[in-house]
Amino acid sequence: MIGTPLLPEIRELIEQRNFSALQRIFNDWLPVDLAELISDLPENEQAVLFRLLPKGLATETFEYLDFDSQQNLLTALTKKHVTHILNSMSADDRTALLEELPGTVVQELLKLLSFKEFKIAKTLLAYAEGSVGRLMSPDYLSVKKDWDINQVLDYIRTFGHDSETLNVIYVVDDIGKLKGELLARTLLLSAPEKTVSEIIAEDKLITLTASQDQADALEAFKRYDSVALPVVDSNGYLIGVVTVDDMLDVAEEEETEDIQKFGGIEALEEPYIDLPIPQLIKKRAVWLVILFVGEMLTASAMAFFEDEMAKAIVLATFIPLIMSSGGNSGSQAASLIIRSLSLGEITIRDWWKVMRRELVSGLALGCILGTIGVFRVIIWASVLGHLDTKWLYIGFTIGISLVGIVMFGTLTGSMLPLLLKRLGLDPAVSSAPFVATLVDVTGIVIYFSVASLLLGGILL
Amino acid sequence: MIGTPLLPEIRELIEQRNFSALQRIFNDWLPVDLAELISDLPENEQAVLFRLLPKGLATETFEYLDFDSQQNLLTALTKKHVTHILNSMSADDRTALLEELPGTVVQELLKLLSFKEFKIAKTLLAYAEGSVGRLMSPDYLSVKKDWDINQVLDYIRTFGHDSETLNVIYVVDDIGKLKGELLARTLLLSAPEKTVSEIIAEDKLITLTASQDQADALEAFKRYDSVALPVVDSNGYLIGVVTVDDMLDVAEEEETEDIQKFGGIEALEEPYIDLPIPQLIKKRAVWLVILFVGEMLTASAMAFFEDEMAKAIVLATFIPLIMSSGGNSGSQAASLIIRSLSLGEITIRDWWKVMRRELVSGLALGCILGTIGVFRVIIWASVLGHLDTKWLYIGFTIGISLVGIVMFGTLTGSMLPLLLKRLGLDPAVSSAPFVATLVDVTGIVIYFSVASLLLGGILL
Repeated sequence: MIGTPLLPEIRELIEQRNFSALQRIFNDWLPVDLAELISDLPENEQAVLFRLLPKGLATETFEYLDFDSQQNLLTALTKKHVTHILNSMSADDRTALLEELPGTVVQELLKLLSFKEFKIAKTLLAYAEGSVGRLMSPDYLSVKKDWDINQVLDYIRTFGHDSETLNVIYVVDDIGKLKGELLARTLLLSAPEKTVSEIIAEDKLITLTASQDQADALEAFKRYDSVALPVVDSNGYLIGVVTVDDMLDVAEEEETEDIQKFGGIEALEEPYIDLPIPQLIKKRAVWLVILFVGEMLTASAMAFFEDEMAKAIVLATFIPLIMSSGGNSGSQAASLIIRSLSLGEITIRDWWKVMRRELVSGLALGCILGTIGVFRVIIWASVLGHLDTKWLYIGFTIGISLVGIVMFGTLTGSMLPLLLKRLGLDPAVSSAPFVATLVDVTGIVIYFSVASLLLGGILL
Repeated sequence: MIGTPLLPEIRELIEQRNFSALQRIFNDWLPVDLAELISDLPENEQAVLFRLLPKGLATETFEYLDFDSQQNLLTALTKKHVTHILNSMSADDRTALLEELPGTVVQELLKLLSFKEFKIAKTLLAYAEGSVGRLMSPDYLSVKKDWDINQVLDYIRTFGHDSETLNVIYVVDDIGKLKGELLARTLLLSAPEKTVSEIIAEDKLITLTASQDQADALEAFKRYDSVALPVVDSNGYLIGVVTVDDMLDVAEEEETEDIQKFGGIEALEEPYIDLPIPQLIKKRAVWLVILFVGEMLTASAMAFFEDEMAKAIVLATFIPLIMSSGGNSGSQAASLIIRSLSLGEITIRDWWKVMRRELVSGLALGCILGTIGVFRVIIWASVLGHLDTKWLYIGFTIGISLVGIVMFGTLTGSMLPLLLKRLGLDPAVSSAPFVATLVDVTGIVIYFSVASLLLGGILL
């Protein structure tokens, strides 16, 4: 039952300019499906279809549109239509739209708002990007402690239509301080003659503040399985409400940032496909250059071992294999530890436990790869028909180096996120490329040290 | 107001064995906070404290406990106590517990259930892991179309106490087929004398099926901003309900899998710190060995260029620098495209648009690194006092190779996820290490080809 609208049929009706048929069909659609249809249309057709929607549905649909389509409609629709939409849309969705627009456009649009909505919009935009204030809606319902359930129900029927949620309503005292919350569940289960104060538990109230980070709000929603949480100011006055549906979007944004960071890239903040190419390049270039400069040390390290390589050029041929094994095991460890840290499964205090686990894992993985490496060299040499003591020694050089490098990669990958966290930095900075770069230089030193030890007098 | 309980105070009361004081304190606590406290205690103390909780709070607290503590309590508590908890806990939380336990233990525990709960538990466990069935609760409230609102409210007050959610109740016909849903919002806003059929919209119903993937359910919740969605069987009979709070957990699990896969590791399915080390090694070894075997091609490629290296050993010293640049730019591109695909920002059909963007980005990034590379070589040679035409040529070999390799890395990283998706595979398999491995072999070939062209007759 979930799905994309049947585009071909609709397309035909649009081409026939059969607007009355479209209008009939659209009345049965959900706003989110209408929004998807309109987003898929070319820009010049979006407004034509959007105008077919009745007022209420138009505003709801507008809230679901992507930013580009919203921007297009703001210029294509009449001033009167835009005024209606901006004044009637949810305060939190409006904030999300306005924060993406250039300042001059925002000023123009704010002029279209009624005095009340203007004040709300200004207040919400005053909160920092990424803060709870930018997500909250001031459209909540609040009741008094001495009301009985029947009074509450009457009040809801009269004033509840514009409320962002009715799954929770709030209890405030005479001066607006938050005193408790009344879940729709409690309300529906309580006898009509009971008073609010009899059915709410004041001391178990979870609240957010407007300046709080959205990621903290997400934690609270997860922890307490809430459908909505109240936002209070520093004096305990109720100023807004955040609903759980916004949290799924916050979770998605957080994940996007994490994955991009782990890929060694600054978080984009906009969809990949919409980001102008110069910005896309800038977001990538910073880390790429830092890593490149760091990796230059490998060239210096190798220059240091030039004599060894000149004597046994075969040693050089295994460098990529050995280096990449360190990088790969490091990436694995880093992805495990970064994620565990962000889920709160481990804390910095667990570093010793993590280190022991990683030492054992690294040793085991190193032995597995080392064994394969030894066989690779021996079999290769046999196939080429020149297996001798020299090649056996080369095989063991590769094998022992692999054990050391995989262990070093695993330890670096696991300890670096913990160290970054300890220093107050974001553990996610220890991206796969960053760990690989760190491990590469050391890998070369380990490899040639093992080679010097084992092959001294034989090859070197 | 969100936070961890004050452990030192509590610890003191536990040491004093002041159980009556603890009991008084615990009565004011939220189940989730109690669960955190109990999880933090040593295993032998967990049951002592848990027994202090009144029955209802005990069950709720049990639902929030981590799996290890739950398992510990199942063995430490009396059979009577365990029987009560298992029979009174939410069906979906019970499923989550049972699916983690070994089969023999599950059989023992199922025997403790009442006939009704036994049937429910068996049914839910029959659904595949990761399916909607494992998340759903059969405790929903359903009403008939011809009831009026007053009748519905009375029905809720009488039978609603065990319902998983009252934010949505369902409308079914006489034989149990789902006909519509009644949001708490609609219910609260409607006049008491209206009938259910007057206030529900039948045609806009979104449903899930029990066998559906949990990730699909997450998409539906995000798309429709739902607080709960009904689950129907293939004939349209209502069989359960899934609530949005479970979705935040699903989102978290999906993200964990994505990050682990991108780190080049099989998804763990259990917290890192709880996973036995042998399994931890196994989860990592598979990909590490595959990548290692793939990377062996680099040794073969380099063996092929052994003569060139023997003539100009300096060429070998830049190999790690050049290879890693390809891997890093590939990781960046892969992380961007995998995420964009999973957010639905791009589809396979956009491949040409993506390719153009990545060609431009790759060229720009390659030129940036290439320029730095040329300067690195020239400055290095000057510092060592042997800058001559030969070194200029080496510099340009490095620079041009970098342009080619970064472009190749960017294209591989961006196209591989699209290709995997086209083949019906999971795009997330194109992990940072996987992309790096693919790019490494080609990087060596590109580098030595450029070197042969530019340095032929000079060094080679």
